This record gives sequence, structure tokens and C-alpha cells, in this order.
Amino acid sequence: MFEANRYFEDYQLGHKRTTAARTITEADIVIHAGHVGDYYPHHIDAEWSAKSEFHQRIAHGTLIFAVGAGLTAGDINPEAFSYGYDRLRFVAPVFIGDTIKVELEITGKRDDPKRANKGFVDESCRVLNQRRQTVMIFTHIHSVNRRPLG
Amino acid sequence: MFEANRYFEDYQLGHKRTTAARTITEADIVIHAGHVGDYYPHHIDAEWSAKSEFHQRIAHGTLIFAVGAGLTAGDINPEAFSYGYDRLRFVAPVFIGDTIKVELEITGKRDDPKRANKGFVDESCRVLNQRRQTVMIFTHIHSVNRRPLG
Amino acid sequence: MFEANRYFEDYQLGHKRTTAARTITEADIVIHAGHVGDYYPHHIDAEWSAKSEFHQRIAHGTLIFAVGAGLTAGDINPEAFSYGYDRLRFVAPVFIGDTIKVELEITGKRDDPKRANKGFVDESCRVLNQRRQTVMIFTHIHSVNRRPLG
Amino acid sequence: MFEANRYFEDYQLGHKRTTAARTITEADIVIHAGHVGDYYPHHIDAEWSAKSEFHQRIAHGTLIFAVGAGLTAGDINPEAFSYGYDRLRFVAPVFIGDTIKVELEITGKRDDPKRANKGFVDESCRVLNQRRQTVMIFTHIHSVNRRPLG
Amino acid sequence: MFEANRYFEDYQLGHKRTTAARTITEADIVIHAGHVGDYYPHHIDAEWSAKSEFHQRIAHGTLIFAVGAGLTAGDINPEAFSYGYDRLRFVAPVFIGDTIKVELEITGKRDDPKRANKGFVDESCRVLNQRRQTVMIFTHIHSVNRRPLG
Amino acid sequence: MFEANRYFEDYQLGHKRTTAARTITEADIVIHAGHVGDYYPHHIDAEWSAKSEFHQRIAHGTLIFAVGAGLTAGDINPEAFSYGYDRLRFVAPVFIGDTIKVELEITGKRDDPKRANKGFVDESCRVLNQRRQTVMIFTHIHSVNRRPLG
Repeated sequence: MFEANRYFEDYQLGHKRTTAARTITEADIVIHAGHVGDYYPHHIDAEWSAKSEFHQRIAHGTLIFAVGAGLTAGDINPEAFSYGYDRLRFVAPVFIGDTIKVELEITGKRDDPKRANKGFVDESCRVLNQRRQTVMIFTHIHSVNRRPLG
Repeated sequence: MFEANRYFEDYQLGHKRTTAARTITEADIVIHAGHVGDYYPHHIDAEWSAKSEFHQRIAHGTLIFAVGAGLTAGDINPEAFSYGYDRLRFVAPVFIGDTIKVELEITGKRDDPKRANKGFVDESCRVLNQRRQTVMIFTHIHSVNRRPLG
Repeated sequence: MFEANRYFEDYQLGHKRTTAARTITEADIVIHAGHVGDYYPHHIDAEWSAKSEFHQRIAHGTLIFAVGAGLTAGDINPEAFSYGYDRLRFVAPVFIGDTIKVELEITGKRDDPKRANKGFVDESCRVLNQRRQTVMIFTHIHSVNRRPLG
Repeated sequence: MFEANRYFEDYQLGHKRTTAARTITEADIVIHAGHVGDYYPHHIDAEWSAKSEFHQRIAHGTLIFAVGAGLTAGDINPEAFSYGYDRLRFVAPVFIGDTIKVELEITGKRDDPKRANKGFVDESCRVLNQRRQTVMIFTHIHSVNRRPLG
Repeated sequence: MFEANRYFEDYQLGHKRTTAARTITEADIVIHAGHVGDYYPHHIDAEWSAKSEFHQRIAHGTLIFAVGAGLTAGDINPEAFSYGYDRLRFVAPVFIGDTIKVELEITGKRDDPKRANKGFVDESCRVLNQRRQTVMIFTHIHSVNRRPLG
Repeated sequence: MFEANRYFEDYQLGHKRTTAARTITEADIVIHAGHVGDYYPHHIDAEWSAKSEFHQRIAHGTLIFAVGAGLTAGDINPEAFSYGYDRLRFVAPVFIGDTIKVELEITGKRDDPKRANKGFVDESCRVLNQRRQTVMIFTHIHSVNRRPLG
């Protein structure tokens, strides 16, 4: 994890990348339940889940988001910081044993109305399972310095 | 964690609640780094962090979001499901030893343009530290069944 | 987790409640072995366990007790504190994949011979698996303030 | 962890032993809270705890019991099995950074009224902190085979 | 874990011992990946691994080494300290569900050329799976005090 | 973590690189003790350690090795596999709060006497703390394919 300076001007609309993949295990769900204190039966009660819409336990949405965002981590860009996330949507459940990866695309570049020396970059993230079904989408908003003049 | 049926009509605009609180520890950050695979020095390198803007390690944004969302978990409402999150913003850093809680307010109710029998409910979540500073905001969108006629 | 004041007089002999359920996973056993330092082969050696009385690994008794007690956690009662446990008995083994819940009943109310302003309340706890077999019993003893006069 | 056959007749009333010691850390409490789902503010909310009777967070009782019992684990005795626990009492709080060990004594040997070939052995366990204060007591009941005749 | 003083002269060339065994679970691999930050697909991507040479995920080499070394832990010898390890070799993969144990033999005793009052003891460690296949070897080097004269 | 093919001929004697850094926390030691089952008082008993040579708890050697090796993980090279480690030496203790990183250098290239199409590459690893003291050394041996002819 090393630093690589990239300015607002360096981000290319339409640029795409894909992350490594990771299998979501029962252990991940057990650890996440305890880590965040979410013991809803959808995640940790196999009997209740067997009678539910999905017939089995499903991963926490916050688990898929946090692991998905973790998979996208790359070099540190000292010119940017993470401003927030928009349009996080739960599209399909992730089951124990599913393997997820994230496809990213730069889909927006906008002025920052309050700071002339910065701009916003939108990175659309699509989390896919091993059957190439989309299970989650979210947009990561970066606040990025413009390249200094001169 | 028990079931309590609440329909779209039962959600009151302006209704507020506050969660229990939780101290974010060094152990939480270590566990989160490993759980999601995010080893950025901001979180796990005390030397690098001492020279950074905040002079110390800070919690992962995905940690504060996941724990914050976990704190809001209450009874199961079989008439609702979690549709997604909007406007997740990192407002201020959370340091090791800070204690966070979440204040929630129902701030929106809208028709679902595609499903006449459902509506959207927006729950605005504000994560506060022990100095009552806002550290994160996000809006939780629920898709809720309308009360059946008759 | 909010506070709700209940005095000794408020506890009703024969009052019953049932907790949510939780599936005991291989991950829970691995985490418990490391957490408490109990690596007996009954819990973490599948080969040894295959030749044992139960033909498979079984959960630690302290795991079932701690998770069972955890499942019973409800609102905080500032008028009570946990005095101890009696008659903890291992009735049947819990296997990987079993789902447990706890049935509770107030089975005793007694004077505290040393403190006139307090009394003891016994809550009998029965841990059941998904086949409704009792796997563990224990009695939780609460020391509870009597309601102040006037 | 090896096997060592010991019969009912081999247990000596008054026999004493002391375990190794272990420091209870903030990480242990964080892990226990998630492992068993007990997020009471006494354990994970430093602000609430600062205003409480003990002025700081305290370890879960089930943590001290499970770690204490874990510390007592020795050789496997194929002639005995763990029957249960009695008189578990919370004597004093354990704080972050306290170091506990367990002193054990064989305090009872009794016939098993239902099984002539077995007897009960009571092992009294006293959990001490680094100031030699007793923080917890419990009695471990073993069901042990009598030595075969001939 | 108690102290037992053993001097250089007390170690016998050819002395053998065998540890208890432990099943390597999916949870162990998930915990190790996060603990050390090694998310290579060989360990945590079931899809990638299905197409690999071994057709399934394999345990990290550092996991088998650390657990193997952990299995060998016995009494504390205040006269010895762990000097290092030599000839650590990955002989065969360990799969989820395999059960490993370690066979040890004292295979070398040598003078310490820099310290006349100490010597080196080599303990060869062979990690075996449940099919008695060697999966890893390593040699543990102990620096041990010679028995004082007089 | 992406693939990048590098053959034996591509490794340059004397090539150096440095990893990112990581702070070793009390939580890491607690997690490692449980993960590998090593509860020696040097690591988990603060009272015992206060009277020891180092006056405080120290990290497990296997923890520093596994985290150090984890820090060195980079791109996957499908032409290489990890053959083993040599000359792992404990040079100085790592205390809670120390921050470690690894400096690597290619220090050896050798024929594989048994496989003409492969060679061995030695990568010397030096683990340093924040005071630039060497705390551990080890040599990672890679078995690497030679570049195919033609």
C-alpha cells in the first residue's frame, strides 16, 4: 500500500477496473454479527432462515458493503479523501459460500461548489457473485485536489 | 429480537429515537481491518498516523457505518425490508476510545412508483461522539408494505 | 438496550419468556476455543471426535452457557444485579449446526437474610435445540431492590 | 493435552492446585461481547461506565467464568465427565488490565444415588485477581467412575 | 503451563514426543487471513481455487507453522529460550477439514561458539495430517543453559 | 492482488523493497494467543511479564513472523511458489504498540539440482521496529520457473 499522487484531472470518465474476489463464509457472518451487534435471525438462525423467503441464512448488507469497499482499496492517493457514499442498494442476497468481487467505473466528475481547488469524482461500484449476478451497488464519492497551476 | 408488524401508514414523519452507545476500541479497529482487508495506515500504523492530519489512528469509515447501523437494529418488522442507504457522509474522524451513538428521525415518506402496495420510508441517522459532535450521517431507506384494505 | 425499573415486587412467580434463537457454528467453537484457551479434542479434533461417544465434535459447555446467558439479555433493570448462577447442568451435547434458544421462568422469590431492602429472584433457564431437546439448564439468581415505601 | 485415567478413589479431599494466570484485556471484552451478543453498557460503553458504581467498564461475568474454567483445563481423564457447576457467585468486578488465576480444592466426594459405579467429586474454584481479591467462586461437579473390582 | 527447569545436559538426542491434534477449519483460514493480512486467492477465493492445482482452498503456510508451533508448547523451561527456526519447508497442502498434529525429535546438540555457558538444541518438527502425510517440516532451535558446576 | 508473471531470470540479485508498516497491538496478541493456542505468560500475563527480563508482555515470535510475511505479500507470480523459510531468528522483542515493517533484498539465486526448469531465489527479510532496530530476520525461498526457450 504505497502512495501515488493523482489529481482531479487524472481521473478519466469511463475508466474501469475489477477487484480480486473473496468467498463469503459462515465464519465471516459470525464475525460480522459479533463485530457490529446485529443478530437478526436472517443471518444467525438457520432454522428461521430455512422457512424464510431465501430458504437459508444470508450475509448482512453491512458485511457485503464493508468487504466490497475493502476489496476496492488500492494505493493511497494523498490528493484525495473519501467524501462519502451514495445510492447503496441491496439488489440480491449473498449466501454462505458465494464469491464476490467488485467492478468499478468512474461515472462522474463535478466541481465542488464550495472549494474551487477541489472536485468530486464518482466511482460506481457493482458487487457481483460467482454467477455474475449483481448483489449490491453503491457509488463512492471522492473529493480530489485539482492540479496546482504553474 | 421479536417481530412487530408496522405498515407504511404507521411510520410518523418526525418520529425520533436514540440508540444505546458503544465505545470504539483499538480492538474494534484491528478486527475490522482483518475482517474487510483494509490495512490503510490511517487505521493500523500508529507512526504514520502520528504525522498525519489527525495525529493518531482513526476508525475505518466502514466500521463506523456498520457499527452505527448495527446500533439501530430493533424489532423485526416483517412488513418492511431494507432497500438501501443514501447520502452516507464522513463528517469527522472517530478516534480510539471515542463513544458513539445514533440519533434517528423519520424524515421522508414517498410512494414507490413501481409498486402501488408499498412505500418508501427515509430514516435519517446521525452518528454522534461523546462530545456530541456529528461524525457521520446516512439515510436508511425502508421499503414498507401499505396496510391491506378491508 | 434501555433501562426499565422493576422492583422485587414486580417479578411474578411463574412468568415465562422465550429468547431469540441462534445457530452454533464451527466458527463459534473455533472462536471459543481460542477465547478461553480450551483445546480439548472433543471440540477441535474431528478425528478424535469421530471415534468418541458422540461421533462428532461438540460445543464447549462454557460456550453454550455464555451464549445462552447472552440470549437472555434484555432491558437493563437498575434495581437488580446479577448475583450468580446455580444448578448449571450439561444435559445433552450441542453439535455444529444445532440451533439453540432459551426458555425462562421465574421459579423462586426469597428474602435476602442479610439485606432487608432486597430480595432474591430465581429465573430458571432451559436451553433447547431445534428438536426441542433440553441441552442445558441453569438458574440465574437476581438480587433485586424492594420497592421503597411511601 | 493427554489422557490420564483417574478413578473416583484417586481424588483426594483437600487436594489443592493453582492455575496459570491471564490478563483480561479490552480486546477480550470486545471479543466476548460479540461472541455472546451481550452489549450491556457496563462492558462496552466507557462513558456510561464512568458514571457507574465502578467508574469504569467491567468484564462480563460469563467471560470471567469461561476463561476461569478454561484456565483449569488439564489432562483429559477418560473416567470422568463434567456434570455441571453450582454456586457460581460474582464476588467483585474484574477491570480491564486485571490478571486472574484460579485456586482449586477438592471439597466434596459423594455417592451418585442413581449409578452405583460412579461418584460425584466437587472441585471448588476461586478466581483471584493480582491483588489476591476473590472475584468469583464456583464449584465444578465431576461425575467419576469408581475403580473396577478385581 | 508451569515451569520445569531443564539444562542442556538434560536434552536427550533421539528423544521423541507427539502433540495433541487440531482440525484446521474454514474459520481458522478466515481468521488467519485477517490476522496477518494475506488475502491470496489460494486461501479465500473458492472459485479461483477450484480451478487451481489443488481444486480447493488451502491453508496459509504461516497458519500451519504458527498452529503447529503452538501445538508443541509445553511447560516453560526457564533455562531455555527460543533462538529461531531453520529449514521450514512446505511439503504438502493442508485443506479445510484436515487434522494436523506434530511429531518432534531432538536431532541435534551443539556448542554455542560465542557463549560457553550455553548450547544449542535442535528439535525437528514434522507436521502430519490425518492420513499420516507430512505437510510441513521445520527445526526449532533452542538456546539452553548448561548445568552450573558444583 | 493481481497476477504478474516473473521468471527466474527476472529476479535481480540485490533488488530491494520495503513493505508498509503495521502497529502490533494488545488485540493482535490476544487474537494470536487464541488462534494458535499459545498462552505462555510472556504474552498474556502482565503480572508475570512485569517481573521478567523485558518488564512487559512481548508479542509471540510466530505472530511477528506471520504478520511480517503477510506484509511482504504482493502480486501473485504464477511462475513461482513458496518453497520454505530458512534462518528465522528472534533478534529483539516486539512490545505492545511497536510498529513493524519489513525490508527485503534478493540475496541468492541458485539452480534447483532436481529440476532443470526451475531455480531457487532467496529473499532476505528484515523486520524492523519504529526505532529501526531489527527484531527478526528470515529468508524466504522461492522456487521459480525458468523462462521457456524460444
